[in-house]
Amino acid sequence: MSQQPPDHRVSHNAVADALRALHKIFPDRVETDPAVCATHANTRTWIAAEPPDAVVQPQCTDDVVQIVRMAEKFKVPLIAFGGGTSLEGHVNAPLGGLSIDFSRMNRIVEINSRDLTARVEAGVTLAEFNAALQDCDVFFSVDPGAGTATLGGMAATRASGTNTVRYGTMRDNVMSLQAVMADSSVVETATAARKSSAGYDLTHLLVGSEGTLGLITALTVRLHPVPPASVVLVCGFPTVHDACEAVIDVLQSGVRPARIELLDAKMVGAVNLHSGTSVVEVPTLFVEFHGTSAEADAQKNRFLIAAEKHGLQETSEASEPARQNTLWQARHAAFDALKTAWPDKTVLATDVCVPLSQLSKCIEQAQRDIDRLGLTAPIVGHVGDGNFHVLPVFEISDADQRAAVDALLTCLVETALDLGGTCSGEHGIGQGKIAFLEREAGAGIAVMGKIKHALDPLYILNPGKVIRF
Amino acid sequence: MSQQPPDHRVSHNAVADALRALHKIFPDRVETDPAVCATHANTRTWIAAEPPDAVVQPQCTDDVVQIVRMAEKFKVPLIAFGGGTSLEGHVNAPLGGLSIDFSRMNRIVEINSRDLTARVEAGVTLAEFNAALQDCDVFFSVDPGAGTATLGGMAATRASGTNTVRYGTMRDNVMSLQAVMADSSVVETATAARKSSAGYDLTHLLVGSEGTLGLITALTVRLHPVPPASVVLVCGFPTVHDACEAVIDVLQSGVRPARIELLDAKMVGAVNLHSGTSVVEVPTLFVEFHGTSAEADAQKNRFLIAAEKHGLQETSEASEPARQNTLWQARHAAFDALKTAWPDKTVLATDVCVPLSQLSKCIEQAQRDIDRLGLTAPIVGHVGDGNFHVLPVFEISDADQRAAVDALLTCLVETALDLGGTCSGEHGIGQGKIAFLEREAGAGIAVMGKIKHALDPLYILNPGKVIRF
Repeated sequence: MSQQPPDHRVSHNAVADALRALHKIFPDRVETDPAVCATHANTRTWIAAEPPDAVVQPQCTDDVVQIVRMAEKFKVPLIAFGGGTSLEGHVNAPLGGLSIDFSRMNRIVEINSRDLTARVEAGVTLAEFNAALQDCDVFFSVDPGAGTATLGGMAATRASGTNTVRYGTMRDNVMSLQAVMADSSVVETATAARKSSAGYDLTHLLVGSEGTLGLITALTVRLHPVPPASVVLVCGFPTVHDACEAVIDVLQSGVRPARIELLDAKMVGAVNLHSGTSVVEVPTLFVEFHGTSAEADAQKNRFLIAAEKHGLQETSEASEPARQNTLWQARHAAFDALKTAWPDKTVLATDVCVPLSQLSKCIEQAQRDIDRLGLTAPIVGHVGDGNFHVLPVFEISDADQRAAVDALLTCLVETALDLGGTCSGEHGIGQGKIAFLEREAGAGIAVMGKIKHALDPLYILNPGKVIRF
Repeated sequence: MSQQPPDHRVSHNAVADALRALHKIFPDRVETDPAVCATHANTRTWIAAEPPDAVVQPQCTDDVVQIVRMAEKFKVPLIAFGGGTSLEGHVNAPLGGLSIDFSRMNRIVEINSRDLTARVEAGVTLAEFNAALQDCDVFFSVDPGAGTATLGGMAATRASGTNTVRYGTMRDNVMSLQAVMADSSVVETATAARKSSAGYDLTHLLVGSEGTLGLITALTVRLHPVPPASVVLVCGFPTVHDACEAVIDVLQSGVRPARIELLDAKMVGAVNLHSGTSVVEVPTLFVEFHGTSAEADAQKNRFLIAAEKHGLQETSEASEPARQNTLWQARHAAFDALKTAWPDKTVLATDVCVPLSQLSKCIEQAQRDIDRLGLTAPIVGHVGDGNFHVLPVFEISDADQRAAVDALLTCLVETALDLGGTCSGEHGIGQGKIAFLEREAGAGIAVMGKIKHALDPLYILNPGKVIRF
């Protein structure tokens, strides 16, 4: 147990040795061009970009094994890189090292519509996967809103999105993983059986481990039958509280919408401006129901009864796929909508998740904090799960505004934890939320640290993420 | 890393020292009476009973902390004991040590029907929990068929049962755990938020760890709204294959039955004899649908269409709760039914789980192996999950029959693994399936071993279960 986590940048010599060795094995798949390295650092948020020393592109699991052997030998950090869409600095290389770009491992190995499963390599993007499923009468439910996200990255960050309330997160939809561990062993974490009580749940240990415990190379995921019908409602409420209470009532009644998305009035305004929609600018739920046509309609009607009890003001309905798509594209473009509305500003996205009964309290406290700090920060949320995003729009060169945003992020997590929630519903920890995770997990941090040390004693896998060096 | 797993019984002196210390703290809650110790060993199967040296009954988490401190000091094994209903020798004490009987930790801390969650201590039994939920319009879905099972034990073994196809296993229904770790730290593995991407998934690491990584002291679980209506169908098919194909078709169509249970013809016969039902003795599905009355009926009709395609022979329907209860009680009494039919024989229950598309192949191979080995072994299964039980009925004093049963268990697992399945769908590993788990997990076993060593370096938590000494 003498090995300590490193806290210093890997030496130039070690990197050079590792690269020399890798060049021999993969002469044309190791890239040290600073421009390429820069695209493999955090580029999405205000967390400073920390590019790797090089980018290597494996084509198969055995390539990854060889990369890990090299990294182990020379003690060089390895940072898994999928679509680069993560938001908490997950892909940064604070100690230097190699970014493993999985984009060439993008084979869809099998789509099995009888078992409702698929096997994919880690670098398959969500858009590629959805395209392949187009004519199969099945769909993959996890939908973080970025088609360039890879399935491996989504598993590594335990991603979710709009469909979670009915279909679950990556936690619920990854059945098994193939991963290369820090000792270069290749592990398949489970079989293709739908359930198992055979041993420790390595699948769920790796899902959400952000590349710090093993490198995900392939996944078996669950698929769902395409529902024969779907109906989308857009419902305006007097207050966020009313909208949240309607959601609680409807879930208590046993209705299981496929999606329940909340947009606050400010976010509705920005979405209208960006996407050409004309939703009334009040706190609004976008709700989708799946089933047979009769089932979807019945659920919709039960939802409307609950909504009316809570002051439902405006309703419009979309049953045609084209109009439904327009609405969901508008919802998914929320981030871009803020960029359109405030073209010269920086937009950040953060998230927390609380028990449903505490959701309106949490959002209202966030809104008070936003006002108190003099900020603009629209809110959008997967409210069926108690999860919401706050998106501060600010002048990044203004130190006061930066400080105010920083204060807001802290207030938001403190409120969520005080209300029994978590510091991240779906964005993960990365570099950005390590201190918050420590506060949330308490004694659990030491357990996580022991697992990290046991499985990666040289701390070569994505050091500086999830837990401290 | 010098500490090695022990492979010898704990010394009499160490136990005596630990007991002396515990007697001082809990004068009236430490029991060494051999009769009491005997009831805390494996009593359910042919795995030989290995009683602990003593039984201690904590009343609160802090009591458990003190027990762990004592065990750590004197290096005495600790075996968590819930309802004693596990089937793979989980509660045995092969190295001696203390059984921690959680029966006094049976408080239901909170039932929160707005968040659809409950908080319970680990020793709450399923029957106690269900009784407390009776008038709350919510229910707990996991139903392994033993009311004396405790929620802590069910989490520790990743239990499931008849409702899994719609509502999931303990994996899906435990939101958070409180556990005392081997270093006596108390960990709460997650918050009460419905989803989180904050750090390693300690909840799922502990669910199914069979008391080898931490002692579960309390749980937050998901509840589900009581469906307004339910309908039960009993459907007979020409062959097991036909029944399985009907299940695949119906799940592919998006119908989500609450339960789909298969009984082979022999099992139907035994159930009729025991419970006074008069189900036609052919391969039979018991299927239950939940929803509004219209939804349940619509699902039933879609199921019948699929069933008719696959030779549906006999159908009867139960919509009244009383008749539904009779049917489910008959189904849950399958094990007892075999004891009634063969009063002088021993009955064992084992289980495997395979992908749905391989299920009929796996069951048919099992039936061929049963015949080849000259055994009687009815089959019953949670076939919506690909999980089934084989229940050999045999003369335990007959060495040949014992050997035949042993051969059957091995064949069954080999078939399941060859078909992409798991050696246990819901019974767990315990002592009985360690060799099978090794075969299934491959390189994953080393990962499990490292985690065990990291979290329990003295190997005091349930040694000899899940992984070898």
